[in-house]
Amino acid sequence: MLTLNLDNIDVARLGPDQGLRWKDELRAHAEQLERAAAELESRRSDPQSFLGWMDVISDSQLTASVKELAGRVSPAIDDLVVLGIGGSSLGGLTVVTALQHPYHQLLRSRPAPRVHFVDNVDGDVLLGLMEVLDPARTAINVISKSGTTTETMSAYLLFKDWLSRALGDAYRSHVVATTDPVHGILRPLSSKEGFATLPVPANIGGRYSVLCPVGLFPAAVAGVDIDALLAGAREAQASFGAKAAENPVLQAALVHLLYAKRGKNICVFMPYSTRLRYLSDWFAQLWAESLGKEVDRLGSVVHSGTTPVKALGTTDQHSQVQLYREGPLDKLTVFVRVEKEGRPAPIPNAEPDQPDMNYLAGRRMQELMNAELAATAHALAEARRPSYTMHLPAIDARALGYILQFLMLQTAVVGEVLGIDTFNQPGVELGKVLTYALMGRPGYETQLAELRQAGVKP
Amino acid sequence: MLTLNLDNIDVARLGPDQGLRWKDELRAHAEQLERAAAELESRRSDPQSFLGWMDVISDSQLTASVKELAGRVSPAIDDLVVLGIGGSSLGGLTVVTALQHPYHQLLRSRPAPRVHFVDNVDGDVLLGLMEVLDPARTAINVISKSGTTTETMSAYLLFKDWLSRALGDAYRSHVVATTDPVHGILRPLSSKEGFATLPVPANIGGRYSVLCPVGLFPAAVAGVDIDALLAGAREAQASFGAKAAENPVLQAALVHLLYAKRGKNICVFMPYSTRLRYLSDWFAQLWAESLGKEVDRLGSVVHSGTTPVKALGTTDQHSQVQLYREGPLDKLTVFVRVEKEGRPAPIPNAEPDQPDMNYLAGRRMQELMNAELAATAHALAEARRPSYTMHLPAIDARALGYILQFLMLQTAVVGEVLGIDTFNQPGVELGKVLTYALMGRPGYETQLAELRQAGVKP
Repeated sequence: MLTLNLDNIDVARLGPDQGLRWKDELRAHAEQLERAAAELESRRSDPQSFLGWMDVISDSQLTASVKELAGRVSPAIDDLVVLGIGGSSLGGLTVVTALQHPYHQLLRSRPAPRVHFVDNVDGDVLLGLMEVLDPARTAINVISKSGTTTETMSAYLLFKDWLSRALGDAYRSHVVATTDPVHGILRPLSSKEGFATLPVPANIGGRYSVLCPVGLFPAAVAGVDIDALLAGAREAQASFGAKAAENPVLQAALVHLLYAKRGKNICVFMPYSTRLRYLSDWFAQLWAESLGKEVDRLGSVVHSGTTPVKALGTTDQHSQVQLYREGPLDKLTVFVRVEKEGRPAPIPNAEPDQPDMNYLAGRRMQELMNAELAATAHALAEARRPSYTMHLPAIDARALGYILQFLMLQTAVVGEVLGIDTFNQPGVELGKVLTYALMGRPGYETQLAELRQAGVKP
Repeated sequence: MLTLNLDNIDVARLGPDQGLRWKDELRAHAEQLERAAAELESRRSDPQSFLGWMDVISDSQLTASVKELAGRVSPAIDDLVVLGIGGSSLGGLTVVTALQHPYHQLLRSRPAPRVHFVDNVDGDVLLGLMEVLDPARTAINVISKSGTTTETMSAYLLFKDWLSRALGDAYRSHVVATTDPVHGILRPLSSKEGFATLPVPANIGGRYSVLCPVGLFPAAVAGVDIDALLAGAREAQASFGAKAAENPVLQAALVHLLYAKRGKNICVFMPYSTRLRYLSDWFAQLWAESLGKEVDRLGSVVHSGTTPVKALGTTDQHSQVQLYREGPLDKLTVFVRVEKEGRPAPIPNAEPDQPDMNYLAGRRMQELMNAELAATAHALAEARRPSYTMHLPAIDARALGYILQFLMLQTAVVGEVLGIDTFNQPGVELGKVLTYALMGRPGYETQLAELRQAGVKP
């Protein structure tokens, strides 16, 4: 389903200053990688492990409830507005963008509702969106595990007000809340109001939530085949038990670990497909929040994490590749290549008299796309810049589910080897509490005092 | 118009290991910065300097011709498709996204045509776009200085074929070519075909072309007040002559130079406004292609350039800030703050019984946005991560023109102090020629041989 091309990782091209011989390194680290995978497996059933994303892809009852609700909501609406931020938005956005018609929103006759992701506290955008919607034919999906996410809740207040002013009490059937099954404030609020709800399983964090109801409900409303998405994810999960020599997840993890050690603090993620553009955003969140940590599990200061850079091929060849090839030797690049396009686009011989154009005639757009990827990878390697390529057979639900699960597994393995807590995010607490302070939220003084006691100087 | 907040640059917060005392550094480098600015000024009239972007903003005749053509084309169309990549796309995309209604494309009654930017060789996207367009009410704007940009030309061939099959010879009035006034293949082709044309002034490179016809024509069709855009740019240009102590361009340039020297190889650009999201993409191209160079002007190997990372507030607080605050100390962050929103969005008291929500009631969305920015900047500073904030009064054409020109001037000053050629891009040549080779373009062997002679090993 997904294969790796590691041709441009090896030392032969990269020169002695990088000191990397792939085959030797893989052999030397195989045991460590396999141990990390086994360690994750062993913690998988622990309800505190935040590894629920390994199992939720096999929860057919949960999937059925998502499909049932989507099947009930979809025919009643033209538009679904997803109110969520970070992990509550990026997964759904990635899947819907990759698998819906690229101009779905402008189709005259649409096979499924439009899905809008509102992931910022931007009044111009929120009020602008309301202007193009018909409240009677709109539902909102508010997604927050705790129900205290300021950005999501302020957007919810605006949309609830807008719906209820237009629809009276009937607004209640236009809200779906995706939240913690027990805790938080959205759960009791939904009970009181009678909102339809879906659970965020307790053992899954935001950035690992794409294949639970957080990402699956918007995808199902958009007409995505979520069974195929989950089948692909299960394939990736099933192949995770293999030995390092046959395990692309472990191999990809190792490449990042090796180059991070060699001073490459930047990791460029560059799919060659416009439809996969938000996969870069999703990956960037997964990678940055999981691996960017001040201390390891033993409390030693590590300041870990390489910085993900979102790129898009071929577009960013005309924007970033100059720097990637000639600038500092501080990057590892990950390319994603798609073998088969959604529909063949042969280039017509529309300028037969122009030799600078007619050499393209008869070739398919996808050939050109992949020729550019190969050329860019080669040009980087020639300048001693390492890269590897993930090959996908096509962009469909199964392949997308596979790569999503693959990237989550890869990230978890890297965190495990680094010895950090891959699943927390203590570094965003101070900013949150300072925002509360500036906005006068009750109780912020206590929270600030707690942070101060924990050694943070606000 | 644009002010800088440098509070989080200073050493007091950042600790002795960063060794930066802003006021001393500014004094120590003032002369160097002023010399760089004077050097740029002195080359400005040189037709080979690629500094034409300093003057094109005052070319009222050129602006008039853009407005005249846009005024002629706009009433005849519902859609403009811009075919361009990199600098031929990002400027227009930035301006149109910032200044049009955020859901312009979905408005039932639109005050101006929709503008679509096609910047990739993606058949799914190209054919998908054609599906939602009416060729009789569509124009294409093909933008390429040389006319040999593979990505743009292949898209042109598809769209020309599509238009001519639908419209016969009438397709000719549906094409606007923006290209070199004399050279290249698009100019004679346009004469032969009778396409309307606009010039890319010879002395302006792609990434500095936003305020010449490349960016101005799509903006004008989208209904942007390009006179105000240019007036803002002229204000920035006019203030460029000030001494370093009163010159925000020189000060911002210095911050980057100082931190690059101190090992911060990453520069995060993070506007707090969804409408400014493509400003990050535009800046990333400007910065990366201008400053990412292997050698300086004397031929010494420098591998210069910090890596721009596109971010968006508040969204990326829930994605990237964990890494920015706790990960490696390798970043300088640039925030963009907008004082006044396009329309006030007061948060309604829609959940009066929920203390976790009702503290927001009565505050405006923009207050929350800017509270989050301040909190994030403070939380980064507390962890010894430097940042500075650019303040814009509002998002309107004048302020946008100002910041675009500001960032171009800032980039040019940084390149000048580094002693590199800010305006070339030799690092993309090999990838281009290898693509030609894979696609069988006539003459690629000669080009490969030339590169080989120049020391590149393909």
